[in-house]
Amino acid sequence: MSLITLGTMAFDAIETPFGKVDKIIGGSAIYVAYAASNFVKPVQQISIVGNDFPQEEMDELTRRGIELEGVEIVPDKKSFFWSGKYHIDMNTRDTLVTDLNVLEDFKPVVPDSYQGAEFLMLGNLMPSLQLSVIRQMKVRPKLIVMDTMNFWMDIAMDDLKLVLKEIDVLLVNDGEARQLSDEVSLVKAARKILLMGPKFLIIKKGEHGALLFHENHVFFAPALPLEEVFDPTGAGDTFAGGFMGHLAKTRDISFSNMKTAIIVGSAMASFCVEKFGPERLKEITKADIDERISEFVQLVNFDIDLV
Amino acid sequence: MSLITLGTMAFDAIETPFGKVDKIIGGSAIYVAYAASNFVKPVQQISIVGNDFPQEEMDELTRRGIELEGVEIVPDKKSFFWSGKYHIDMNTRDTLVTDLNVLEDFKPVVPDSYQGAEFLMLGNLMPSLQLSVIRQMKVRPKLIVMDTMNFWMDIAMDDLKLVLKEIDVLLVNDGEARQLSDEVSLVKAARKILLMGPKFLIIKKGEHGALLFHENHVFFAPALPLEEVFDPTGAGDTFAGGFMGHLAKTRDISFSNMKTAIIVGSAMASFCVEKFGPERLKEITKADIDERISEFVQLVNFDIDLV
Repeated sequence: MSLITLGTMAFDAIETPFGKVDKIIGGSAIYVAYAASNFVKPVQQISIVGNDFPQEEMDELTRRGIELEGVEIVPDKKSFFWSGKYHIDMNTRDTLVTDLNVLEDFKPVVPDSYQGAEFLMLGNLMPSLQLSVIRQMKVRPKLIVMDTMNFWMDIAMDDLKLVLKEIDVLLVNDGEARQLSDEVSLVKAARKILLMGPKFLIIKKGEHGALLFHENHVFFAPALPLEEVFDPTGAGDTFAGGFMGHLAKTRDISFSNMKTAIIVGSAMASFCVEKFGPERLKEITKADIDERISEFVQLVNFDIDLV
Repeated sequence: MSLITLGTMAFDAIETPFGKVDKIIGGSAIYVAYAASNFVKPVQQISIVGNDFPQEEMDELTRRGIELEGVEIVPDKKSFFWSGKYHIDMNTRDTLVTDLNVLEDFKPVVPDSYQGAEFLMLGNLMPSLQLSVIRQMKVRPKLIVMDTMNFWMDIAMDDLKLVLKEIDVLLVNDGEARQLSDEVSLVKAARKILLMGPKFLIIKKGEHGALLFHENHVFFAPALPLEEVFDPTGAGDTFAGGFMGHLAKTRDISFSNMKTAIIVGSAMASFCVEKFGPERLKEITKADIDERISEFVQLVNFDIDLV
């Protein structure tokens, strides 16, 4: 029941209305791995870093059952660096710096030891790289989940549409769903996107929760109303990690279990935003996670009696 | 188990990306009454209209068990008129015209025959008028619910705070909750507002659902993802009407039953937006309502097994 995660391992500089951090570990594969490793081991990472990526961060990942054989270390380059500043409402942000560094020449390779993985999480990256990882798998994984973003819709839509035909679940936010489908209504957008390849579509709406579409079914999971959103960076990837972790742990990819997986993902994301970067994800225990999931049950639980 | 509704009865002119209507019946008390009368009779209206309000609309209300003794008819003035235009995203609108007309001199009077009502819905109006209705009740209703808006926070905050001390449930949208509390976080906003008087706070988030706060509890109800939102006018009042209607029908004002009432309100609001004004509310049957409520159950229902 292993899980492969393709994505970035990076440094971020983040400014929010609550504070500022100049250099903190980040990247989609970091958040996915931290979230998923609470539920499934091993998590098999495919990524790339430069000569500046701290050994103690690598050691910490290994300690959590995250395998790093698929992480290329480039000796003469720096790791990917992203810097952003959040607006006061925390829902929008400006990207200040994007230094691709090692990402410029990234050619992901699936190690032999990863072959046979049942679950594949394609973090947000150039669609051709996502496709290359799918093509390298000798046996198609039981479930392939893809994250992507508006940037690739702008510059690589054809490639993106090729990947869509190969995957099972697409994860996008509401704006991206609208851009991909050219529909304002999310219900109409979902119907169009489900014709492009994926059997399941998850539309993330940030603080407004997430929607899961499958055939004619729709499920809505709220985000937990939080007292403080300290730093939203990585929340979407953490959601994906919790979602994949639960599915890989249970090995059940039914619609019904995906609903549960979305609640688990939402719970993990609610921790992520409590501190800068993945800091909070490094602290939490199984008991914290169970308690948070119970809060979600309370949040949406109601009795109805149609008379 | 009667329900008193204080609010406007008006004409609206509405423009949305889907069409335009020059003169349609509207006003908060109309939407509340149409929604609530599916669940409870009588609904006892307190409002004011001019000489131009159509008799057939009055007759239709009466046919539905809505009592109009508390509706003043001013022979030499016109009814309240509002005109608005929705932006393409349907979440924001510009008010084009507000002709107060009869509303300028509105002094709501509670008829003797309304005394003893257990449920009182104070639609969005000048806070001093809402307070006057509360003060006219010889026996305090079992539940007083108040809707209000940012406009009164701008110009009549002191009066508004007086009303808050007299009510049980406050209904506002997210922007209004933030303005009233001076807090960005809705959780913090709720905590502050619950100290101002109301025991329950409902924060409406339009297409993103609604939150119910009470003591340390929070409940989240989604809005149904809709293919088309044709006209959002009156959706908030319709929500209030469904909410009050269910509570008045069941006469149970526990937190648990309020959760159910919010789902009923959300279901009613989801009909309202399907056509212009209250048109759709005039068509729907008990079977339609039950089916829609079942869709809500499906939408949020999930199984979780913490192991």
